[in-house]
Amino acid sequence: MDEITIRFFGKEPGRDLQAPVLIEGLPGVGHVGKLVAEHMIRELGAEKVAEIESIYFPPQVIIDEDGTVRLANNEIYYHDGGDRQFLFLVGDYQATSAEGHYLLADAYLDVATACGVTRVYTLGGYGVGRLVEEPRVLGAVNRPDLKIEAESAGAIVSRDEPGGGIIGAAGLLLGMGLSRGVEGICLMGETSGYLVDPKSAASLLRVLNTLLNLSIDPSLLEQRAEEMEHMLQKLVDTERVSQDEELRYFV
Amino acid sequence: MDEITIRFFGKEPGRDLQAPVLIEGLPGVGHVGKLVAEHMIRELGAEKVAEIESIYFPPQVIIDEDGTVRLANNEIYYHDGGDRQFLFLVGDYQATSAEGHYLLADAYLDVATACGVTRVYTLGGYGVGRLVEEPRVLGAVNRPDLKIEAESAGAIVSRDEPGGGIIGAAGLLLGMGLSRGVEGICLMGETSGYLVDPKSAASLLRVLNTLLNLSIDPSLLEQRAEEMEHMLQKLVDTERVSQDEELRYFV
Amino acid sequence: MDEITIRFFGKEPGRDLQAPVLIEGLPGVGHVGKLVAEHMIRELGAEKVAEIESIYFPPQVIIDEDGTVRLANNEIYYHDGGDRQFLFLVGDYQATSAEGHYLLADAYLDVATACGVTRVYTLGGYGVGRLVEEPRVLGAVNRPDLKIEAESAGAIVSRDEPGGGIIGAAGLLLGMGLSRGVEGICLMGETSGYLVDPKSAASLLRVLNTLLNLSIDPSLLEQRAEEMEHMLQKLVDTERVSQDEELRYFV
Amino acid sequence: MDEITIRFFGKEPGRDLQAPVLIEGLPGVGHVGKLVAEHMIRELGAEKVAEIESIYFPPQVIIDEDGTVRLANNEIYYHDGGDRQFLFLVGDYQATSAEGHYLLADAYLDVATACGVTRVYTLGGYGVGRLVEEPRVLGAVNRPDLKIEAESAGAIVSRDEPGGGIIGAAGLLLGMGLSRGVEGICLMGETSGYLVDPKSAASLLRVLNTLLNLSIDPSLLEQRAEEMEHMLQKLVDTERVSQDEELRYFV
Repeated sequence: MDEITIRFFGKEPGRDLQAPVLIEGLPGVGHVGKLVAEHMIRELGAEKVAEIESIYFPPQVIIDEDGTVRLANNEIYYHDGGDRQFLFLVGDYQATSAEGHYLLADAYLDVATACGVTRVYTLGGYGVGRLVEEPRVLGAVNRPDLKIEAESAGAIVSRDEPGGGIIGAAGLLLGMGLSRGVEGICLMGETSGYLVDPKSAASLLRVLNTLLNLSIDPSLLEQRAEEMEHMLQKLVDTERVSQDEELRYFV
Repeated sequence: MDEITIRFFGKEPGRDLQAPVLIEGLPGVGHVGKLVAEHMIRELGAEKVAEIESIYFPPQVIIDEDGTVRLANNEIYYHDGGDRQFLFLVGDYQATSAEGHYLLADAYLDVATACGVTRVYTLGGYGVGRLVEEPRVLGAVNRPDLKIEAESAGAIVSRDEPGGGIIGAAGLLLGMGLSRGVEGICLMGETSGYLVDPKSAASLLRVLNTLLNLSIDPSLLEQRAEEMEHMLQKLVDTERVSQDEELRYFV
Repeated sequence: MDEITIRFFGKEPGRDLQAPVLIEGLPGVGHVGKLVAEHMIRELGAEKVAEIESIYFPPQVIIDEDGTVRLANNEIYYHDGGDRQFLFLVGDYQATSAEGHYLLADAYLDVATACGVTRVYTLGGYGVGRLVEEPRVLGAVNRPDLKIEAESAGAIVSRDEPGGGIIGAAGLLLGMGLSRGVEGICLMGETSGYLVDPKSAASLLRVLNTLLNLSIDPSLLEQRAEEMEHMLQKLVDTERVSQDEELRYFV
Repeated sequence: MDEITIRFFGKEPGRDLQAPVLIEGLPGVGHVGKLVAEHMIRELGAEKVAEIESIYFPPQVIIDEDGTVRLANNEIYYHDGGDRQFLFLVGDYQATSAEGHYLLADAYLDVATACGVTRVYTLGGYGVGRLVEEPRVLGAVNRPDLKIEAESAGAIVSRDEPGGGIIGAAGLLLGMGLSRGVEGICLMGETSGYLVDPKSAASLLRVLNTLLNLSIDPSLLEQRAEEMEHMLQKLVDTERVSQDEELRYFV
């Protein structure tokens, strides 16, 4: 068994898969990156072209809707928009060890460079520990000249945020990509860190739309954000009502 | 020293060991899978044909009844019922690391395919955090068409349970088996998660009997379940009596 | 750098180092095994013949008496008593991972078999969670016929103790030794588990003396045990006096 | 991807890089060693000659001042003072695993010996759990005859301190260096263990200046130490004032 297996379903990197841009949205804080990447895949109708399995993922299967299991894996999607092509890296998991993180990022870059990728966007969340009304989008780059590009699109690129660096694939693809000819921009949507956050995802998508000169409709993400807010509001109201009722005992 | 050593005692896979079905019952929640598989081995009189040792198991020996130690290992049993043959995978341990889980499952599948296995049943428990009067048996499959088969035998196959996926050998044998031509059904007996649970094991065995068209007597498991219930009842009664006695001081 | 390095200082296994017996006393509960093995090395005047370094040991150096550091290592000692030869395995550490435990035990057995060892004694402590007035010595064996030998020498060989098996080198040398032609007896001195325990070590040494037909004087261990008891008694007395003095305030 | 990559920027070990002395100041307690080594690099104007990346480092990137990320790495600096040359090993991280610590230390020694290094100074902090007015500098050596040299320069070399040995690169470079012809002195500045400690770093630098017969100005470290003390004093004062104000409510 190989430590990392990337299985293509027919379309081969370089031959059938040619794309200048890779968009990574693996799980992380608030699942912000995952929400954005999966939303883009749905809206663009991108096609699944490969599955990645690895002994560095958690040793488990996931149960799909029909009771069918599938191995924990990550997936590569491809969208050919005629004049422009995109690759997407999404999935259920990141590595379970430091070594695994590095080796998986290296394998992702192998696929990327084989497909001619020269620019990677890595998407994530930036946990701030409180509910955020207007989530900002932070940016980081792997080459100084990309800073202006990210800022023009609405990202805030600063030294102080995020203070602890960027952990996992979102960081490593930038850090390891540079020496392999892949420039990169990491976008991080501000989020509480406590909930899956489609609102932050919608903010991030707006910045990414500008960067990619795309106009992917964020309304499904916004709708989901509204539903979550209603649900949260309902929870708060229920709580308040039950407190009111308890108080009546004392009236 | 090899990372995984599978030592056969004379009967060789393929030549002497031919079986379409492998039943896995390694340790897990409530030891439900282990109880069922070991019960079947006893009732069918299956024969131990191999031992598996690995640096991925905990680094320890177990002390057997006569003070003799043996290395932590897993074991393969074989039953030739004339027209039908079964392999069993049982033992003391699962891997201590994510990587080890994958590599061991891969080695188990090597043995299985060498023996001509095309169907695996993986057995486990499903912890629900409370005592269960009538334990249900949940099922998961690695190919959609197996769902009906599992349900007809009495298993409940649904998306929502178990929510967190299936961890360890019970999940990986299904997830990794598919691409190697091994179809699979996972059966999980509901159990509290606090105790070894022969009652849940008896429920699981009934479903497995139907699936395999066997009629292995579950009465020893049921008997053990009754003994455990008596013992628990006794504990509860003793507790109650001592509380009553304490109360008399106040009368 | 090799994962495990065993450096001999001139005397080579097989050629200069021939011994039927290996005695292992690596660190463990109450340091009982370590105390016994180091005491034997001192009393017999055994000679250090090899050092073992490994990436599986903790990544640190120890500061010796004169401020000189040395790498965390284990050591092999050799005693040639004329008609009888012994090897000793002692040191500062056991492995930091499950895999490391297995690979180190395998390397120890390589040395042992190269030196002609056919019998290993592994020494350890058995933590019982309370102070023990008369520490018993438990035994475990890797071949049923050794049970009587261990019992005749005063060890208690039973199924129930220790319940959780034997972890680390003391267990693995027995469990892995069998298939390599090395029979083994593990001796475990009862000990609280809270303190280094020379008293338990003295008890263990008496059993080992009988097994090896040696008469190594345990008096230094007994003396150290007495010193520890005096010290503990003093601590208790000091505590009592200070309590008495506190009480006087209330008189 | 290699497990450890050392990238030189043009100057090659042995050919362009020749130095008898390596000074290691990787992160550790109070960042004492890091502060000293980075201060020396600045004061001497040493030049960065190599970067070290490894799967044994934490899987993350650091965000630099301009929002540019760089992979977690360690760095080698070189100073050619005409009659004397120095190498420095500094950086952001130590290994995340025991095995990684050993393998990285081995790689550092490969570079050192390739550059002709025969003496290593490893710098660190020694946490004592309380604020230290006059931080002592403890020393440890990898050859007994170096003890006097360290003591003459003002280091305290004793068996009892630090009790737990020296963990990580500072220890391993000494412990592993000896057998590769690299003698070594480890200097540890006393520090609380709670704060980055430039005061302790200044003390350590004074000892190292003597050992190396250098006169690197410690005033920037001392200045930074004073600033920290002022800041701490201010915090204490603010705290006191706010307590006084709270008390007024009760007057």
